[in-house]
Amino acid sequence: MAIIKVPAAETKYGFHDDYSEGAHPRVIEAMTRTNLIQQNSYGEDDYCNEARQAILSLIGLDPAGAGLGDERPSIPKIYFTPGGTGANLLAIASHLRPHEAIISAEPGHIVGKEGGAIEATGHKVISVPAEAGKLTPSAIHEGYETAVAFAFQPRPKMVFLSNATEIGTVYTRQELEAVARVCKDMGMMLLMDGARLGAALVSEKATAGGRDDQLSLEDIYRLTDVFWIGGTKNGVLLGEAIVIKDEVFGADFPWHMKQRGQLLAKSRVLGIHFSTLLQSQEEGEGDLLFWELARHANAAAKEMSNALVGMGFQLWAETDSNQVFVIFEKDLVEELEEQFNFFVWEKLENGGLVVRLLTSWATDLEQVRRFCRLVRAWKSKGEA
Amino acid sequence: MAIIKVPAAETKYGFHDDYSEGAHPRVIEAMTRTNLIQQNSYGEDDYCNEARQAILSLIGLDPAGAGLGDERPSIPKIYFTPGGTGANLLAIASHLRPHEAIISAEPGHIVGKEGGAIEATGHKVISVPAEAGKLTPSAIHEGYETAVAFAFQPRPKMVFLSNATEIGTVYTRQELEAVARVCKDMGMMLLMDGARLGAALVSEKATAGGRDDQLSLEDIYRLTDVFWIGGTKNGVLLGEAIVIKDEVFGADFPWHMKQRGQLLAKSRVLGIHFSTLLQSQEEGEGDLLFWELARHANAAAKEMSNALVGMGFQLWAETDSNQVFVIFEKDLVEELEEQFNFFVWEKLENGGLVVRLLTSWATDLEQVRRFCRLVRAWKSKGEA
Amino acid sequence: MAIIKVPAAETKYGFHDDYSEGAHPRVIEAMTRTNLIQQNSYGEDDYCNEARQAILSLIGLDPAGAGLGDERPSIPKIYFTPGGTGANLLAIASHLRPHEAIISAEPGHIVGKEGGAIEATGHKVISVPAEAGKLTPSAIHEGYETAVAFAFQPRPKMVFLSNATEIGTVYTRQELEAVARVCKDMGMMLLMDGARLGAALVSEKATAGGRDDQLSLEDIYRLTDVFWIGGTKNGVLLGEAIVIKDEVFGADFPWHMKQRGQLLAKSRVLGIHFSTLLQSQEEGEGDLLFWELARHANAAAKEMSNALVGMGFQLWAETDSNQVFVIFEKDLVEELEEQFNFFVWEKLENGGLVVRLLTSWATDLEQVRRFCRLVRAWKSKGEA
Amino acid sequence: MAIIKVPAAETKYGFHDDYSEGAHPRVIEAMTRTNLIQQNSYGEDDYCNEARQAILSLIGLDPAGAGLGDERPSIPKIYFTPGGTGANLLAIASHLRPHEAIISAEPGHIVGKEGGAIEATGHKVISVPAEAGKLTPSAIHEGYETAVAFAFQPRPKMVFLSNATEIGTVYTRQELEAVARVCKDMGMMLLMDGARLGAALVSEKATAGGRDDQLSLEDIYRLTDVFWIGGTKNGVLLGEAIVIKDEVFGADFPWHMKQRGQLLAKSRVLGIHFSTLLQSQEEGEGDLLFWELARHANAAAKEMSNALVGMGFQLWAETDSNQVFVIFEKDLVEELEEQFNFFVWEKLENGGLVVRLLTSWATDLEQVRRFCRLVRAWKSKGEA
Repeated sequence: MAIIKVPAAETKYGFHDDYSEGAHPRVIEAMTRTNLIQQNSYGEDDYCNEARQAILSLIGLDPAGAGLGDERPSIPKIYFTPGGTGANLLAIASHLRPHEAIISAEPGHIVGKEGGAIEATGHKVISVPAEAGKLTPSAIHEGYETAVAFAFQPRPKMVFLSNATEIGTVYTRQELEAVARVCKDMGMMLLMDGARLGAALVSEKATAGGRDDQLSLEDIYRLTDVFWIGGTKNGVLLGEAIVIKDEVFGADFPWHMKQRGQLLAKSRVLGIHFSTLLQSQEEGEGDLLFWELARHANAAAKEMSNALVGMGFQLWAETDSNQVFVIFEKDLVEELEEQFNFFVWEKLENGGLVVRLLTSWATDLEQVRRFCRLVRAWKSKGEA
Repeated sequence: MAIIKVPAAETKYGFHDDYSEGAHPRVIEAMTRTNLIQQNSYGEDDYCNEARQAILSLIGLDPAGAGLGDERPSIPKIYFTPGGTGANLLAIASHLRPHEAIISAEPGHIVGKEGGAIEATGHKVISVPAEAGKLTPSAIHEGYETAVAFAFQPRPKMVFLSNATEIGTVYTRQELEAVARVCKDMGMMLLMDGARLGAALVSEKATAGGRDDQLSLEDIYRLTDVFWIGGTKNGVLLGEAIVIKDEVFGADFPWHMKQRGQLLAKSRVLGIHFSTLLQSQEEGEGDLLFWELARHANAAAKEMSNALVGMGFQLWAETDSNQVFVIFEKDLVEELEEQFNFFVWEKLENGGLVVRLLTSWATDLEQVRRFCRLVRAWKSKGEA
Repeated sequence: MAIIKVPAAETKYGFHDDYSEGAHPRVIEAMTRTNLIQQNSYGEDDYCNEARQAILSLIGLDPAGAGLGDERPSIPKIYFTPGGTGANLLAIASHLRPHEAIISAEPGHIVGKEGGAIEATGHKVISVPAEAGKLTPSAIHEGYETAVAFAFQPRPKMVFLSNATEIGTVYTRQELEAVARVCKDMGMMLLMDGARLGAALVSEKATAGGRDDQLSLEDIYRLTDVFWIGGTKNGVLLGEAIVIKDEVFGADFPWHMKQRGQLLAKSRVLGIHFSTLLQSQEEGEGDLLFWELARHANAAAKEMSNALVGMGFQLWAETDSNQVFVIFEKDLVEELEEQFNFFVWEKLENGGLVVRLLTSWATDLEQVRRFCRLVRAWKSKGEA
Repeated sequence: MAIIKVPAAETKYGFHDDYSEGAHPRVIEAMTRTNLIQQNSYGEDDYCNEARQAILSLIGLDPAGAGLGDERPSIPKIYFTPGGTGANLLAIASHLRPHEAIISAEPGHIVGKEGGAIEATGHKVISVPAEAGKLTPSAIHEGYETAVAFAFQPRPKMVFLSNATEIGTVYTRQELEAVARVCKDMGMMLLMDGARLGAALVSEKATAGGRDDQLSLEDIYRLTDVFWIGGTKNGVLLGEAIVIKDEVFGADFPWHMKQRGQLLAKSRVLGIHFSTLLQSQEEGEGDLLFWELARHANAAAKEMSNALVGMGFQLWAETDSNQVFVIFEKDLVEELEEQFNFFVWEKLENGGLVVRLLTSWATDLEQVRRFCRLVRAWKSKGEA
């Protein structure tokens, strides 16, 4: 058997995605520490319950008594799935009837990034135009009207949005309030995909209006019917935490998880991941690891974004969180590809390439700077 | 946030299932060691490829060039899913057409233990009687004939079996050869659920006929169309490895994984788990960790089973692998439940209870002995 | 183009099924008479509404205002589908959530006669043993308990039965009351497949207890959550009428019909069929055509059944309605097959064949007698 | 029971759709004539076989031996379904694997007129822009490229088009050849929805290039993988005839029909409908009823369209077949609605309303003229 490769000095560094590394060392440490303690399976372990407590606190509810057996009314049910596609298909399939559909912005993850997972559960995804990657009340309204214009067509009953969006932009509290209002007015539920929720909530954009105006997990719980907090892209090996408001749908959820192959026997792993992520760095001191990691990712993206803009490059999308979308010329891209991994998102009419650069909790700032130096060198070479 | 509980001395010890602990320390160690090495996502990482090499070697094929991009004809494709229900629903949904059905023994996992996962993909599961938990050629034949007796009923196109079975029995090579023959004769594919394949293959039963006659992974690859090697129940945190013979179905498989929410972004975790599990204990020395762990589980079950039979208790099923099914009286069960966790499988007509006791790679033999002492004490008390 | 064949004298006569002919002449006549009158599509035509009125009257409700737009609370919604499999899959898919299952007797039509239609909508069908083709409260109870014995398995939420059953037996009012009671006690809905409901309700068996005790459409509406009245097997070209109690499921039903391809553009055909079937023979005089046709079918079966029993043949099932199941020897079957079409249902251990003989509204009693003469001749030949 | 209403003089006349009447009298006559002849069920009757013969002749193949049991290689299988949505969902679900998708023009019937029927079978419908309601090679190409740009997204494997399109336009032979070529080049199958195929093939547009260039059923069979001939909208009570090229998919088709509730017990009705529709008016004389009825529908639309254009109204779509799309002012629409039924398709920015006027085999030309007189009167009134 081949020996595990140690990364050679010349290995390319990756800004390809935010899941190239394993987990934050503290997550690994907690997992190791608790490894041999026997626990219940399928989400009824102590660690899942501790994570549930942490989430209840974060959304402003009493954590006491959290757990699968928690019978308190108006306390949401919380579950942990291995990944985001599973979280979305479960949230949708468990909340909709066969003839009901879901509205999503065109770049929505469920539209073109999840392998037809929603259609595979029998539901139509109605896509509408986005503004800066975000859903607008008018787009939702129009999508709904078009859908019901002909008799017996799939009835929109849920609205999907991602925060941060698929192009890294984030929702302000006002924007989310407006979306939630139109959903409520039209009798539709609201689902938030929080694969990058950490990055979204620590974004300067989300705090634009100042502290009082900052979008919080408490707001999100208040404004949505079901949402999930992404772990995979913010420091753990795997796992997303789903928060479900409806009592019946919430109670039935494990049946759906089992039916879709989304219920891990050793859910303890997801539990310990989230309970660690949602603890403060030093017992009781400092901010939650979850926020710290997201801040690091955003800061790395911002540094990169600012540097590139400073050199005169044009951004293809605002750098609100941990995704940088910049327009490069073909030969610059080729030169960069010799030393870095990243994703070419789109080819523009004028031949320019939209390059997507992702940063994460694990991003090495030195590599960000090396990347920028390389770009600067290429630019001055051209100007010479 | 609550502090992680350290197991107090009086905590009940569990024989409830074989996934109460985390992963074998060597698995944790490998994961920790490689944690910060950047890797490709979605199964294209180095560790998944190393695991693929290990599996190809085990089924008698040339490991060179293993990987998602492996274009060699007649080399199976190998993928890693988080859990067993996902592995089964994917194997079935990717191999059958909508009007095709799958035959399973009545106690088959897909019949009554996977939340209707197969039906949720649109396929009927035809259940037939089992003998000692195992499928027989005649049961398959009869199930097929009944299914096609009326026009346009779901056409059986695949046969499902678990090895070890859901009650811990295992197939001999002759038995599997016979089942494979009837499948071939009737134009049906054969799927083996290997959640406990390790325990099955190191079982004395599988080796009954002596070395030459031992059922091996090579045989299983030869006799089935698709099978999977269980990791979750044999030493890792999560993961099952699926081996697919058909070239077209094999190449399309990742699309199905994505569509069903079974494709982990950080598949590296599954890769490092399996590459460690399939390495020999000491680099190049001794047997594979996978076999060693299975042997420990079986040995613990055998010791417990022998002790109970020695005391005059009746087994409800043969102890071929790591599951002990024994018949206890109600008050013995109640006494045992004060100190141990286990599962009461069934209530018999005569009032006796069928108790299921599972052992695993992590089972503490001291606890097995303590359990037996408690039973013996109860028995002598009664005889006094 | 070949000329339509006129049945030659020597053509075999069929007792193969109860849908070998077209429609009763009065149905054809009504269709012809209204053929060129423009009507609304998709079930909003005058004839569907007239049929709805007729059905409401039959179940003891006020027919005034019947129609798709009928907003009266506690008035069931009524729809018309082309066939029975569509009626069943719609009734089930519109009433169950993805994780819910339906319990049926083993010989139930949805178990082995509808091509996996229910599984194709994602739901598991749990089959339980029948007594004389009928569901019993204890079988339902046991099926439920087994289904919920393991965590997160499909939760039984509906019970399916056919009246008349698939082997021609019928439910008495007491039997249906008992089944309905256990469903209610266990929180399950009850669905009745009425493909042969006419034959069931005019059966001597249903009226066994005398007039006051006769099972009526009013009882069926009271005791079930959703049921349908079969037209295809009782005098029309196609069509089944579904009666839905639940207000929400009833209102949503056309969306499901459209989604499953069960909503005919010219539903007027189904409307005129049922409005004619549910009219009295002579305007205002005599019984409904629906009952008359069913009585003819039952009488023909009874005459045949009595004759065969009189000759000493053994019935395989009671002749409660329009299906005769009798045990014949192989060579008698071969002789009969030269002049008649019928279905060989099963081969018995002792070599005897279970023959199914169906009669219908169109059965020619002369042919019934000719069939019996042939059997009698064969018998005396043997005795000679 | 209410008496069937005779249409009062003042009843509004309908141009709302092409299925407001029953069937052509010759269809009713044939059905009546054969009504009591016993036939096999589920599509194995003489009439379905005669219709199969007629269709084979029309696509240039030897009709001899047509029938369900027809084992000749390279002879397509032909089936009859009650309606168009069923025909489409069956054609798609029987030809695609779970991870495969279908491309359709945005106005395609499967996109927004079939209640999410395709998604309900698990498949994603990828919609692309249309030109005059028609698919173009470039739109197909772009739709394909976008779909496969991200890993593991639903793979386009089939292309859907309707001829005539949903807005009444039709494909020329050149256009269909071009679409078929791009499908072939990209490894996709081609499905043609022929709900209004009669109207499309007798359209002046289809014959634009003169006889040698006319698009024929023979061409359609040659250029598509599966297509269906619409009966419901061209003279029968119900029924569409599906022609399937692939031998395996063709042979399996009845299983899919049964599973989706699309297989009528009395398929004889569909058989006699199509065998009559595909016979010449007088035995052996004149053109097929199918073509004659379509010509009447188109002629009525053309007369209406020409008259409206003559008055200076603007068409919203070309009147290639039996659908007239014209732009009217709101108050004209209100005046017309007092005497006619029709569908308001869309509201334009400028306040104008797009009105859809459908003609059919049954359209009364006098009513067409009365409609035009009313429009003319309104116009002159305005000009006065």
